[in-house]
Amino acid sequence: MLNLPRGTRDFTPEEMEKRRHVQKTMTSTFKSFGYEEIQTPTFENLELFTAKSGVTIINELYSFKDKGNRELALRPELTAPAIRFYVEKLQMEPKPLKLFYFGNCFRYDRPQKGRYREFWQFGCELIGTSTSEALAELIALAYHSLKKTGLLNIKLHIGHLSLLDQKVDETLGLKKPPLSEFHPGGQVWKNEMFRLIDKEDLGGVINKFKAAGATEERITMFTDVLNYSSLDELKKIGFKQELEQELERFEKIIMLLSEFGVVKDNSIKMGIARGLDYYKGIVFEIDAPVLGSEKQLCGGGEYNLVKLFGGKDTPTAGFAIGFDRTLLALEIEKYEFPVTKIQVYIIPVKEETIKESIKIAQNLRKVGILTDIDLLRRGIGKSLKYANAKSAKYAIILGPDELEKDSVTLRNMKTGDQELLKIKDIISRLKKIL
Amino acid sequence: MLNLPRGTRDFTPEEMEKRRHVQKTMTSTFKSFGYEEIQTPTFENLELFTAKSGVTIINELYSFKDKGNRELALRPELTAPAIRFYVEKLQMEPKPLKLFYFGNCFRYDRPQKGRYREFWQFGCELIGTSTSEALAELIALAYHSLKKTGLLNIKLHIGHLSLLDQKVDETLGLKKPPLSEFHPGGQVWKNEMFRLIDKEDLGGVINKFKAAGATEERITMFTDVLNYSSLDELKKIGFKQELEQELERFEKIIMLLSEFGVVKDNSIKMGIARGLDYYKGIVFEIDAPVLGSEKQLCGGGEYNLVKLFGGKDTPTAGFAIGFDRTLLALEIEKYEFPVTKIQVYIIPVKEETIKESIKIAQNLRKVGILTDIDLLRRGIGKSLKYANAKSAKYAIILGPDELEKDSVTLRNMKTGDQELLKIKDIISRLKKIL
Repeated sequence: MLNLPRGTRDFTPEEMEKRRHVQKTMTSTFKSFGYEEIQTPTFENLELFTAKSGVTIINELYSFKDKGNRELALRPELTAPAIRFYVEKLQMEPKPLKLFYFGNCFRYDRPQKGRYREFWQFGCELIGTSTSEALAELIALAYHSLKKTGLLNIKLHIGHLSLLDQKVDETLGLKKPPLSEFHPGGQVWKNEMFRLIDKEDLGGVINKFKAAGATEERITMFTDVLNYSSLDELKKIGFKQELEQELERFEKIIMLLSEFGVVKDNSIKMGIARGLDYYKGIVFEIDAPVLGSEKQLCGGGEYNLVKLFGGKDTPTAGFAIGFDRTLLALEIEKYEFPVTKIQVYIIPVKEETIKESIKIAQNLRKVGILTDIDLLRRGIGKSLKYANAKSAKYAIILGPDELEKDSVTLRNMKTGDQELLKIKDIISRLKKIL
Repeated sequence: MLNLPRGTRDFTPEEMEKRRHVQKTMTSTFKSFGYEEIQTPTFENLELFTAKSGVTIINELYSFKDKGNRELALRPELTAPAIRFYVEKLQMEPKPLKLFYFGNCFRYDRPQKGRYREFWQFGCELIGTSTSEALAELIALAYHSLKKTGLLNIKLHIGHLSLLDQKVDETLGLKKPPLSEFHPGGQVWKNEMFRLIDKEDLGGVINKFKAAGATEERITMFTDVLNYSSLDELKKIGFKQELEQELERFEKIIMLLSEFGVVKDNSIKMGIARGLDYYKGIVFEIDAPVLGSEKQLCGGGEYNLVKLFGGKDTPTAGFAIGFDRTLLALEIEKYEFPVTKIQVYIIPVKEETIKESIKIAQNLRKVGILTDIDLLRRGIGKSLKYANAKSAKYAIILGPDELEKDSVTLRNMKTGDQELLKIKDIISRLKKIL
């Protein structure tokens, strides 16, 4: 027997209904914010992802070669492709560009509960502006995209990597960059530190600072900062001159968020480090607490990729929403997804009524009524059972007797009530009762 | 610079608008016929496709290995995955099953004009019935799916493989199957012959028959049959007893097609051979003549795959629509795609009017008005230019003077007419004029 590949999923009609519904809701939120949809290929040249994330990413990718012997990879995420697209073809478009996308991504790891090798993301990029209102709008869009799906309980956390970065330097007592990127405060050292912070591995953070010779007192000050959940706390500690401006912008963003309708469910969280080398400035995450340990639904922020990809430097920010987890959270919260079912099921009782039954079916379909018709010639009993299994609202029964009177029997599948109805009156009658 | 992989495409917002529009139209046609959407993974175990199409297909596939060292392949088509899904999980569902899907497929060949390595298909499978009304409905669905997108000129051709197959045997003078599948009339020989027929390579067909010892007279009779375009011609020539019934069903299908609203644009074409080993019975194709040599938009018919994939035998039929070609044909026919553009572009003239501008934007977005707002603080002139570039219908200008009067300036971007409007009246005014 031929099986589904490990770590992947088939989606049944019921599941697809839900997925399309959430896709539609999110799409309309993005559009209402002036975002426009783009699409990039399912695979990219491998170097796109190594340029962004380093060669270690190769172990997490599905890669293969094309006929020109170029290394390709199934995309593990959608930001690098979107920025590649921008650099290749959209740089001359009027700024800002507000682009969104919905696509599948691939992760080459051991399948675990709730983690799949093929998964879907909704996301966007805002290119060409970094004003406080631009960032506030972006964060608000992430928030409303999720909220509008019907999620009851989500939590937005906002952090700031540049501010956090300076606190790392202070804790180390660094006045200038170290000689090597591997030394405390160097890029490699910091990447490791940010990864520990992102994993909320406080013990690891403390040990790494200790190994670098930081004093207990300074380390405690740092871990305090990680726990800050308000701007007031942040404003009390000092920042370098050039970062005071960043702090001001941060404050303005928080203030504007409430104008954008994000009034509750949000807080500062300085411990957001996103563990990714190309993020900078504002970073944010949205959780669904109902999901437990795998609760993060969305992550995003400001980043630098355009220049790395050969484009002219310009501010960029964006986020990605885990589409599968959003659905999971909605299901756990018992969200009632709308269901579209067959509205009318037509049963030609005898072969000689098939022609007229088809005519009726086509007329109903033409006016947008979801109509099905028995294609198995199985008689009334079995057909009604099928109509029931498919949750059809009404059945139209057409036997030779009815046909002689230019009529059909209309049956309410829920109550079992039946009425004789002229064929010419079917549509007007159905429009009234559907 | 990092490039788009060869043979693939990025889609701009304008292109995505068109694609989503056609996707939506097709989806609603499929649903109105009682079909339900499913989705399968982007890659499958390689053996799924070799089981269906033989090992030669490997040369046309993107394949790679997973961590368990299993060979995987990006799907080249969607029927095998759908039937695999059916066999694995849907066999117990009430029959018939009417499943449709929309997905990307991958073909590992040299890119040519209009042929891409990643392309999209709309398709469906009808599982569990082979009555004439079932087949007629399927063919009608293919026809209407394309017609409803707005295509003006499409041509439906219907053929019958079993009838054609018997005529091949007759031309060879075969009374029983040959000893080897490589001998004239054997499976391998026939596959080659059907491929020639499908390519409309009449010279190749004649030569192959000649090499097999068929008489000139019989060959001429056969090539006549390939040119038949009506049932009447077909009914004049004889068929084996067991095929007479097939011919009757064929006739009934053609008759019912007109009940399903397929009244013109269709004809018999006995030369359809689909070149695929698992097709049988009814086959059909829909062309868009406007596309020239690459004119086929849709191909389908009855086939046998369920048993091959380990399931319990049941009638199956389906078709696939080339989504990219459909779009191309619409564009060549100059179909006017609906465009959704920003409806209102809000310009906060000074920093102090940003807060109120955001409030207005959010209120408009809440009632579904596609609203954008200047995020670059670039002043009225440049903002109006941007609004123009984005084809915004209206601009709302909010300066300190207007704010003092709880008003905004509403500007019609087409005419340039401006009016002062109370903030509280914006929505009711816009609802009137949008």
